[in-house]
Amino acid sequence: MNVSDQTLLLHLGGKLEVTPKIKIRTRDDLSRVYTPGVAKVCMAIHEDPASAFSLTIKRNTVAVVSDGTAVLGLGNIGPAAAMPVMEGKAMLFKELAGVDAFPICLDTQDPDAIVEIVRALAPGFGGINLEDISSPRCFEIERRLQELLDIPVFHDDQHGTAVVLIAALMNAAKCVGKKLGDMRVVVCGIGAAGMAIVKMLHSAGVPVVIAVDREGILSGAKTYDNIAWQWCAEHTNPEGIEGGLADALRGADAFIGVSGPGVLKPEFVRGMAADPIVFAMANPEPEIRPELLEGIAAVVGTGRSDYPNQINNVLCFPGIFRGALDCRASRITEGMKLAAARAIAAVVTEQQLNPEYIVPSVFNADVVESVRRAVVNAAYADRVARRVDKREPADEI
Amino acid sequence: MNVSDQTLLLHLGGKLEVTPKIKIRTRDDLSRVYTPGVAKVCMAIHEDPASAFSLTIKRNTVAVVSDGTAVLGLGNIGPAAAMPVMEGKAMLFKELAGVDAFPICLDTQDPDAIVEIVRALAPGFGGINLEDISSPRCFEIERRLQELLDIPVFHDDQHGTAVVLIAALMNAAKCVGKKLGDMRVVVCGIGAAGMAIVKMLHSAGVPVVIAVDREGILSGAKTYDNIAWQWCAEHTNPEGIEGGLADALRGADAFIGVSGPGVLKPEFVRGMAADPIVFAMANPEPEIRPELLEGIAAVVGTGRSDYPNQINNVLCFPGIFRGALDCRASRITEGMKLAAARAIAAVVTEQQLNPEYIVPSVFNADVVESVRRAVVNAAYADRVARRVDKREPADEI
Repeated sequence: MNVSDQTLLLHLGGKLEVTPKIKIRTRDDLSRVYTPGVAKVCMAIHEDPASAFSLTIKRNTVAVVSDGTAVLGLGNIGPAAAMPVMEGKAMLFKELAGVDAFPICLDTQDPDAIVEIVRALAPGFGGINLEDISSPRCFEIERRLQELLDIPVFHDDQHGTAVVLIAALMNAAKCVGKKLGDMRVVVCGIGAAGMAIVKMLHSAGVPVVIAVDREGILSGAKTYDNIAWQWCAEHTNPEGIEGGLADALRGADAFIGVSGPGVLKPEFVRGMAADPIVFAMANPEPEIRPELLEGIAAVVGTGRSDYPNQINNVLCFPGIFRGALDCRASRITEGMKLAAARAIAAVVTEQQLNPEYIVPSVFNADVVESVRRAVVNAAYADRVARRVDKREPADEI
Repeated sequence: MNVSDQTLLLHLGGKLEVTPKIKIRTRDDLSRVYTPGVAKVCMAIHEDPASAFSLTIKRNTVAVVSDGTAVLGLGNIGPAAAMPVMEGKAMLFKELAGVDAFPICLDTQDPDAIVEIVRALAPGFGGINLEDISSPRCFEIERRLQELLDIPVFHDDQHGTAVVLIAALMNAAKCVGKKLGDMRVVVCGIGAAGMAIVKMLHSAGVPVVIAVDREGILSGAKTYDNIAWQWCAEHTNPEGIEGGLADALRGADAFIGVSGPGVLKPEFVRGMAADPIVFAMANPEPEIRPELLEGIAAVVGTGRSDYPNQINNVLCFPGIFRGALDCRASRITEGMKLAAARAIAAVVTEQQLNPEYIVPSVFNADVVESVRRAVVNAAYADRVARRVDKREPADEI
């Protein structure tokens, strides 16, 4: 290791610590937080399991769980090598939203084992953030866990990405004077994120969604082994068009890429409808470099911080979990995700909105609180909240 | 819940938080602790797995794992109700030894499942503290996990208790002018703690150990379903005596009770050898109240803070894990446990030692450092240390 490297130095000893909220200075302190006094607290929970939310760390604690199979753009690097990402995520949870998050990296890649392990370790947690689990395994793992658990299970690579992209699309549409209900949107790359984006585009009322992956436009005329592709074949592309990305984009209003570097060509964008919107999210190298789209696209966004319109999950996951924990939601519904997307979009005011500023900065302190409030209200509306959030007026229930 | 109760109030919201060690204030900070900078750290670990110890929280982090089957004296109250104990334990790890410990309470009681779950979640941890897992399941779970993992797996109810009791016995023996190598010791209650105590008495050179449980003296003339009882039947009671606790104690030098309230009678102690030593550890109500032994026993210890000689695991586990983590031990050997016991005993000086002061206070700051140093040196001697502890002179390796 080159120890002079600042990033590596910053990581020496890891990035998190677990600290007591109460000092133990005397024998009396000890007898209250530990034996024998703690026995009374244990029995209170034993008699009323719901009191675990008030008497333990559960109500504010999220497990950040990965099996290391799809870490950043690095692929299947395993659980130990995934830890720095999960630690970073836990830091952001605490810094941005006051959520206590702990990284759990699993040395197994068997979906059945992952489901059983996460189910079993859930009692101490108020939510599960799944992270960097490869597609299509991630869909089944998330679905089965959510069926087994009464706390939110949220695969951030899917839904966090989708929420922020929908927020960006809402504001980009405003910039070009279009409505989501009239749009034709192409999603390129049907992995974890692509699949969730396609579903959210449906929920957001986009009438025509076309999904494209390595084999071209996914079409109901074919069948696919990959369950995400098959779902898209059955639920997108209502006109049954065939061909490649260029064909899909002909006349489209927006391109959303969650695929790989360089797959988008300027000439494809020239074939889109007027004022094309291009979100080239592949990381670190986008589907197309924004400078190649000058004078061609109306709005361009990427995942990178060195271009305008950085579309980053950090805008979503802290606030969405803050809201879910505050109202003790049993799950995160499509309604809560859409509410989060609208809240993120609304942080950018009409006055501020322009093609180079469609999403707020990740350091904008209004984002977490806006998302939190929207998510809490949507949880009440969807009847998945189990507690009055004391920060909200009671009449909002 | 009676919210006026101070202990319950203290527990509202839980007792731990997970905090970043580095502040994230700017986009540059973000890009170093999270994407894209973190990718370099991930790849460094992927290329050299041992670097997980330096580049993640692993080197200072312990999982406190329970299935809630034997919590304090409360029995099988389940994982949610066990959380307050595990949180308290994690607080003590941090307060006393700077170890980051995180509670993991498992919603399964199947030993095979527990082994697989803990094995799988281990990559982010430098040690596993098993806690409040019922006997005899605990023996198999610990043994199998230690075979599977290259980090220490330590069931504190067994070994922490045994280490502190051996320390207390060493000093009690000094008080009465006896040597462990000449003693006859009765252990009453062969569960998790009793079994570990019996084994450690052997390692410490006690020639005659007699194990007693509900069926009386465990004897090689019988066979038992309980694997701990069967082990004791084969490895203790060299004279093959039979009968009950009173018979076992005739002529014995020490009684060690880890059983239940009231099983020891003053008349049994009158039948012991001169200057009897009585450790009545049942919690919260000991095997005999110390006031009943005035003028009968030479040294009396309990688990309680309201009598002299409180024999408490808190004297052991912080220092033993501090030492194991500092030298990156792959396991905690019998040698390391004996070294810890001697270190605890040695914190009480010759001048201080008396029948009412045989173990140091849990708040004595010398305890953790003494245990740590002894454990590190024993780990080198037993060749389970994988790193030079920078706080120790290199020539101690």
